[in-house]
Amino acid sequence: MESRISIISLGVKDLEKSYRFYKEGLSFPTQGKLEDGIIFFQTSGTRLALYPLDKLAEDVSPQINEDRSGFPGFTLAHNTRTKEGVDRVLQLAEKAGGKIVKPAQMVFWGGYSGYFTDPDGYYWEVAWAEFWEFNEDGSLVV
Amino acid sequence: MESRISIISLGVKDLEKSYRFYKEGLSFPTQGKLEDGIIFFQTSGTRLALYPLDKLAEDVSPQINEDRSGFPGFTLAHNTRTKEGVDRVLQLAEKAGGKIVKPAQMVFWGGYSGYFTDPDGYYWEVAWAEFWEFNEDGSLVV
Repeated sequence: MESRISIISLGVKDLEKSYRFYKEGLSFPTQGKLEDGIIFFQTSGTRLALYPLDKLAEDVSPQINEDRSGFPGFTLAHNTRTKEGVDRVLQLAEKAGGKIVKPAQMVFWGGYSGYFTDPDGYYWEVAWAEFWEFNEDGSLVV
Repeated sequence: MESRISIISLGVKDLEKSYRFYKEGLSFPTQGKLEDGIIFFQTSGTRLALYPLDKLAEDVSPQINEDRSGFPGFTLAHNTRTKEGVDRVLQLAEKAGGKIVKPAQMVFWGGYSGYFTDPDGYYWEVAWAEFWEFNEDGSLVV
């Protein structure tokens, strides 16, 4: 098995609202259309997908309960190339309708980081650290 | 904002168990050590991270309830280069202690796909389709 995560699918309550958040709000590129029923965004190395929550649960198994409560147990991180980039992305996210749940701040591991939630409450960390190096495509040097 | 997901962090109940599942079970490469308290795996374009569930919730905000119940609302997908690759990865995952929640099967969108859950119940789809093309690094051609 190659260590690869090809697609991250987020089950969303309101596809149009989430589509606009990512496409118009965050400028994630996509050729997808709402009528397709699923939206794929071009992201470095990984595709981000939005899909109705009940359908995503159903796609796994009809026995899966699509209820979500409390903390979903995961976060997505977007690493910026500069410290100021963290502030810019958080501002952009807030402007797009995201909620700042942790304002940007210096954190214990030596970086500068904040969190916002998207329309479905998925957590995105926006972070910068001096010691991170980037590949040409924007992914982190491992 | 560049459309990039740099890290996926999974909040896990038993770090050692999950570490072994991914490292030994699925052969995901990592230089990480348990005593670091967080494990990063090298994945194409994106890093997969394992982190204790309560600590991940706490890292977002002390107000976040780390309880998870029902369907977490997301899936991770691993796309294989061949149809047989789907069977192989699902067998590997089962052998590693994963649970097959959907056996590999032809699905409505024209692919061959199955699902397994990791030790914390996170859903991984393993999928192949004739029409998918891969970049050199194994990521999907968008």
